[in-house]
Amino acid sequence: MVKDMSQLKIVFLGTSGSWPTPERNVSSVALKRDGEVILFDCGEGTQRQLMCSSLSFMQVDKVFISHFHGDHFLGLPGLIQSMTLNDREKELLIFGPAGLKGLVNTIMGLGYFNASFRVIAREMRDHETLDFGEYTITSYPADHSVPGLGFVFQEAERTGRFNKEKALEMGIPEGPMFSKLQKGQIVKMNDKTFTPDMVIGPKRPGRKIVYTGDSRPTGTLVQKAKDCDVIIHDGTFAPDMEEKAIEYGHSTTLNAAKAAKKARAKTLILTHISPRYSENEETDLIKDVKQVFPSTIVARDFMEFEVSYRE
Amino acid sequence: MVKDMSQLKIVFLGTSGSWPTPERNVSSVALKRDGEVILFDCGEGTQRQLMCSSLSFMQVDKVFISHFHGDHFLGLPGLIQSMTLNDREKELLIFGPAGLKGLVNTIMGLGYFNASFRVIAREMRDHETLDFGEYTITSYPADHSVPGLGFVFQEAERTGRFNKEKALEMGIPEGPMFSKLQKGQIVKMNDKTFTPDMVIGPKRPGRKIVYTGDSRPTGTLVQKAKDCDVIIHDGTFAPDMEEKAIEYGHSTTLNAAKAAKKARAKTLILTHISPRYSENEETDLIKDVKQVFPSTIVARDFMEFEVSYRE
Repeated sequence: MVKDMSQLKIVFLGTSGSWPTPERNVSSVALKRDGEVILFDCGEGTQRQLMCSSLSFMQVDKVFISHFHGDHFLGLPGLIQSMTLNDREKELLIFGPAGLKGLVNTIMGLGYFNASFRVIAREMRDHETLDFGEYTITSYPADHSVPGLGFVFQEAERTGRFNKEKALEMGIPEGPMFSKLQKGQIVKMNDKTFTPDMVIGPKRPGRKIVYTGDSRPTGTLVQKAKDCDVIIHDGTFAPDMEEKAIEYGHSTTLNAAKAAKKARAKTLILTHISPRYSENEETDLIKDVKQVFPSTIVARDFMEFEVSYRE
Repeated sequence: MVKDMSQLKIVFLGTSGSWPTPERNVSSVALKRDGEVILFDCGEGTQRQLMCSSLSFMQVDKVFISHFHGDHFLGLPGLIQSMTLNDREKELLIFGPAGLKGLVNTIMGLGYFNASFRVIAREMRDHETLDFGEYTITSYPADHSVPGLGFVFQEAERTGRFNKEKALEMGIPEGPMFSKLQKGQIVKMNDKTFTPDMVIGPKRPGRKIVYTGDSRPTGTLVQKAKDCDVIIHDGTFAPDMEEKAIEYGHSTTLNAAKAAKKARAKTLILTHISPRYSENEETDLIKDVKQVFPSTIVARDFMEFEVSYRE
């Protein structure tokens, strides 16, 4: 269970597919939850994108790499080196598919360099859940041209809503007793015993965000993304490029919209936009797609999306 | 000997020292000579800087790496991968200090990737000259915290100036005979023989540019940069930071100005500016320095400097 309110926002650091453009850098999505920053992928130039964003590159504590194409991980060595040059001491955790340890090992040995902090590479299997207390992150297999993972961020349940009116009706005075009950403790007054369930509603779900990495849409994704707040989905191609999408193991924006609809997601955000589309052509990318899933957004670099609690 | 006129410009792609800032990316300087682009260093994000500049990343044929600190070479894998994704076939030559072959070998094996073209790594010794026909590039030892090289770009001599007036006086008619003489051929007319030296002046020097990479100023640099058109010099710190400059193997702007003066360079361009200085603080960097060497410029990202011929 987590505290009542946490800020949770998604910051898009790189939204281009395969190689950068002047408008879009290569893949990286940051999740900022209170003071912590989690990265999903870390393409070349991510450290500088962080510096140009509202986030600090020194705040990053965990990085999840979806697969080992350069546009998803080549920003790691520079990020780690700049953290060292800025005297970081806190360890950095890097998660990713099988092969990650070897890759991180190689990256740590590039050129003259010694990290000032521990870099821990942790390989994840398909369908593995890591519990970080206030949230879990679960991997699932992507369907791309090379082995890869998608990730589900799931916040822990929050405590139920405290019914102040009911508490007062029961004769509990406002003050220390309220906060004890809110913390789940039993309180006694004039031989009466009050338990938290008397004045606290049912637990409320935490927020859920799914990041597909590079992938065709899959049944597994739909299942994993069920009722999520946001799907951040591969949206490399416009709907008329389905063949190319299949050839390269990517999705069209329409593929993504159909998946979001099936999963009953609240919002779909498309990223990994092919460099073939200029910012002016974004309308081509989603014009027919919004009919399938109205709450669809095409990500842009530095776009911030605040994830609110469901009521 | 080279053709009479070639465009030669320096394009600054990254001018920050050690790590990037929102205003400056890490080290890379491009030399554009007619259709060819030569890079000196290739820090993380250089491919995107190229995309945002007047140059094409596909035009790069040669890359010279000064030393193996990440901010000088971590842009190589992304550049090579994007060239492959854009179907490059032409080979790419990479030059640098001892250890380059191993580094390039490692870079080529990062993640899932096969280059579509040959990448040739060529290690250079100190004081080695490579002759590319229209120009040479010579290495010399830098004085940095790790082994490194500086590079001297020297254009071949141009043909002398054709003295049209004198040729007409000698009775040579304007037309094919002029161009034969200009090409160095002997022409005959009415039993008279005209040799090119009769109407063509002495050879004219080509242009010369020196790139120091990261370095303290050295006597070798001054010697190598003698009478050059441009020195692109490490200018990490302001003059009041001499101690830090010595500690980290860098130069102050004043160190650079003194070297440029001794070398009788035409222009000094300072780069590798420490992230501690904002663009507004550039005046601090060179306020006292211009008295030592008036033709001093602080580089900015995307600054272009046209190198003209000396008269």
